[in-house]
Amino acid sequence: MEVAETQEMQYDLSMKDINRLVPQEIRALVRKGKWDRPTAGLAPGYAQANLVILQQKYAFDFLLFCQRNPKPCPLLEVLEGGKYQTEYMASGADLRTDIPRYNIYRGGKLEATVNDIKDFWEADFVTFLLGCSFSFEEALLRSKIPVRHIEEKKNVPMYITNIPCKPSGIFSGPMVVTMRPVPLVKVVQAVQVTSRYASVHGSPVHIGDPSKIGIKNLKKPDFGDSVRINEGEVPVFWACGVTPQAVVMQAKPDLCITHAPGHMFITDLLNEEVASF
Amino acid sequence: MEVAETQEMQYDLSMKDINRLVPQEIRALVRKGKWDRPTAGLAPGYAQANLVILQQKYAFDFLLFCQRNPKPCPLLEVLEGGKYQTEYMASGADLRTDIPRYNIYRGGKLEATVNDIKDFWEADFVTFLLGCSFSFEEALLRSKIPVRHIEEKKNVPMYITNIPCKPSGIFSGPMVVTMRPVPLVKVVQAVQVTSRYASVHGSPVHIGDPSKIGIKNLKKPDFGDSVRINEGEVPVFWACGVTPQAVVMQAKPDLCITHAPGHMFITDLLNEEVASF
Repeated sequence: MEVAETQEMQYDLSMKDINRLVPQEIRALVRKGKWDRPTAGLAPGYAQANLVILQQKYAFDFLLFCQRNPKPCPLLEVLEGGKYQTEYMASGADLRTDIPRYNIYRGGKLEATVNDIKDFWEADFVTFLLGCSFSFEEALLRSKIPVRHIEEKKNVPMYITNIPCKPSGIFSGPMVVTMRPVPLVKVVQAVQVTSRYASVHGSPVHIGDPSKIGIKNLKKPDFGDSVRINEGEVPVFWACGVTPQAVVMQAKPDLCITHAPGHMFITDLLNEEVASF
Repeated sequence: MEVAETQEMQYDLSMKDINRLVPQEIRALVRKGKWDRPTAGLAPGYAQANLVILQQKYAFDFLLFCQRNPKPCPLLEVLEGGKYQTEYMASGADLRTDIPRYNIYRGGKLEATVNDIKDFWEADFVTFLLGCSFSFEEALLRSKIPVRHIEEKKNVPMYITNIPCKPSGIFSGPMVVTMRPVPLVKVVQAVQVTSRYASVHGSPVHIGDPSKIGIKNLKKPDFGDSVRINEGEVPVFWACGVTPQAVVMQAKPDLCITHAPGHMFITDLLNEEVASF
């Protein structure tokens, strides 16, 4: 089902309706084609996951890349070759249909954006689910630490740094980070709060001077939007889930399928469960 | 070099001498065949690692097994197929020679114990280094939490539990745990201290009643020695590095090489570096 066809889809669901639903119900709607919009804000309290699907021949190297770079690539679940039903993050969810939009890349180039990938499925696909910063942002907000891009209704600003990831096989490249301005008096607490969430990027990778990690101009993020930094606030940088996507695109595998940005997999696990050691 | 030959080796080194050496110096002695004894107590402050070497055909499944079971199988470093020089845990250490004793298993059966594995090396070997509880025991002692088996100069008691590991491919089996009696007033602190060391088994998996995790008799450990539990002490259980070894033996791969029990790889990383998030 191409996205183009569904743009005209008659939604019988408002955000207010869907916000009352639990993950399993939302995934059922997604599967039936009744929700193909972004998932930010849906199923509050539950972890959402990034998706990367690769052919078996790339799977060991990518799994090792994630093991070597746990902050940008925090693995939540890996499905064995050919499997598309989750076992740990949700019971029996179908990863070919339960994500609102997928991007299909061939040789590192975007070929199509689709609502399900049944037609693209191959028997040797290995599926990776990675943690997403929505989980720790919820924890920051609960701790009364402001999250500027949410306040400003923007995308989080993302920057390509000069911090190299540890390479593995064909996968290598710089770490991409997100930036959130934090009031000086709350920086320690921001480190503490996010440290608990190692499976969703965890503690910051840098605090303060952006030039120290190769960022020239905070006002010009490489992805997402620029946000205001107030007097008395410090830029704090966390590893970003765009890193593995950028690394995979650069490696140009024959085929790779990811979620479309913002259109995540909604798991049955609470953020608090993902946080536990 | 078979161990039998070296049993007669004239050691010109006492424990007192070797305890002044840094990891690189100790590894050089091991490489030259001048130290083939256990490594407990050597290079205080530095992390020691368990070794598992498997052929490439098993590597993805075992890597995934570790990813799914991080407490019993905390990965410190994985070397790509054919590589035997460490990159992250030490600079250029040779894993074919720098461990005092190796066990060679074929079809799950111990075939030989040797001092180096150069003659056994195959181009598609994938080498896994896993964290070891020595690191967190040092942290417990520093926090004045007693470690009974060290006091009693015994091996830590280990038990096969009824907690199933999450399987991956041919690898499956129950979790093996270690037990350390902790004074009731120090149990919380023991959880806190070891939680910091997620790369070396991390926080306990169980506190108190052994029958709840399938252990019938604390006095009869499945491996290691029984230790005294004093009045006012609670048995605390941590995931154990014997788990991956037991799981691999049960899977009966054609070939597997591990360190011989107690004869570990001494890394250049401080326990505190391994602890950082």
